[in-house]
Amino acid sequence: MKLSNVIISRLSIYVRLLSELEERRKETVSSAELAELTGFGDAQIRKDLNLLGQLGISGTGYDVKHLQKVLSRVLGLDRQWKVALVGVGNLGSALLAYPGFKQQGFNIIAVFDNDLRKIGKNWEGIVVQDVGELVNAVRSAKIRIGIIAVPASEAQRVAASLLKAGVECILNFAPLRIKLPKEINLRNVDLTMELENFSCFLTNKSRRE
Amino acid sequence: MKLSNVIISRLSIYVRLLSELEERRKETVSSAELAELTGFGDAQIRKDLNLLGQLGISGTGYDVKHLQKVLSRVLGLDRQWKVALVGVGNLGSALLAYPGFKQQGFNIIAVFDNDLRKIGKNWEGIVVQDVGELVNAVRSAKIRIGIIAVPASEAQRVAASLLKAGVECILNFAPLRIKLPKEINLRNVDLTMELENFSCFLTNKSRRE
Repeated sequence: MKLSNVIISRLSIYVRLLSELEERRKETVSSAELAELTGFGDAQIRKDLNLLGQLGISGTGYDVKHLQKVLSRVLGLDRQWKVALVGVGNLGSALLAYPGFKQQGFNIIAVFDNDLRKIGKNWEGIVVQDVGELVNAVRSAKIRIGIIAVPASEAQRVAASLLKAGVECILNFAPLRIKLPKEINLRNVDLTMELENFSCFLTNKSRRE
Repeated sequence: MKLSNVIISRLSIYVRLLSELEERRKETVSSAELAELTGFGDAQIRKDLNLLGQLGISGTGYDVKHLQKVLSRVLGLDRQWKVALVGVGNLGSALLAYPGFKQQGFNIIAVFDNDLRKIGKNWEGIVVQDVGELVNAVRSAKIRIGIIAVPASEAQRVAASLLKAGVECILNFAPLRIKLPKEINLRNVDLTMELENFSCFLTNKSRRE
């Protein structure tokens, strides 16, 4: 089964809603209820979930626990994933301290920086390593996911090291477009840019008013 | 001047690179150097910057300090913006502790939650208010930017309150598609979804191998 990024995003939303419903001890859920909660169309939801097999029960909808389990397996959430984090500045530190990743099975087990004041120090329970050791350390730990949280000017170099170390997926928080071979799954997140979009929007809106 | 989201994203990248260059006391920069650093094309960069006026000097490129100043003004980064944060769970707390926002002029001055154990408590220097007080508090403080960091099942309700309070821009971290009038500038960030895309990718890749 080969799923597109768009479908994966929706499955990812369903699985988290189902976890919320499970916590509230809800046993079944209809596609109409899922539509109400997610904002997607009823038909869209049924189509997505049909990709995973015959899961709905006519008249009662979906079994919350079972659907959650099936989705978790498809999304690889029933497994643990090792993650390498490069850069423990403001953002890197916040990511390291954020428990949401570990809760979903993503364990940051190796942390790198080029700042001599940080190397060798314990950061949220992990000893920061010299970025020069990245290739060997990541390769020997067989880490397949990397997070880049370094300044823009260093991001391309770090990406090249992660690639050399055998990493297959990179989440980039540095504000630039990293160049990588297309078999690498690269995703970009830029928190500050989202807010800058707002300030630009409001600034130009105020001028027009 | 009405800028598209795509152009704003690129300007946002340029301004941060220029800040890095300024810190390293670089005085001028060519579009070729900016292309090298950002991964965008040389011609694209010149075209974007031409939108802001005649800024380049033939033969020497752009004055780093001046270009940084012009871009900051266009993006509204020379001003301070008040921000309301709703939800101080794991993610909300991390966002509140992250100094990157304040550094760029985005000040979280009001924080809301519905958890009685949190309301009235001091969170990173700000007293958490009852989400029931959101509309009045946000309206009287004239806050125009809101951040939603609540569970998916509460996000739509919170968005409606922010809208009622007069907020014009919403950054949503909850995993669902919020419905809002189109004059509201809504942007979505889902960190866990990015990682779930990876685990799904790797899971299905492993199966194929």
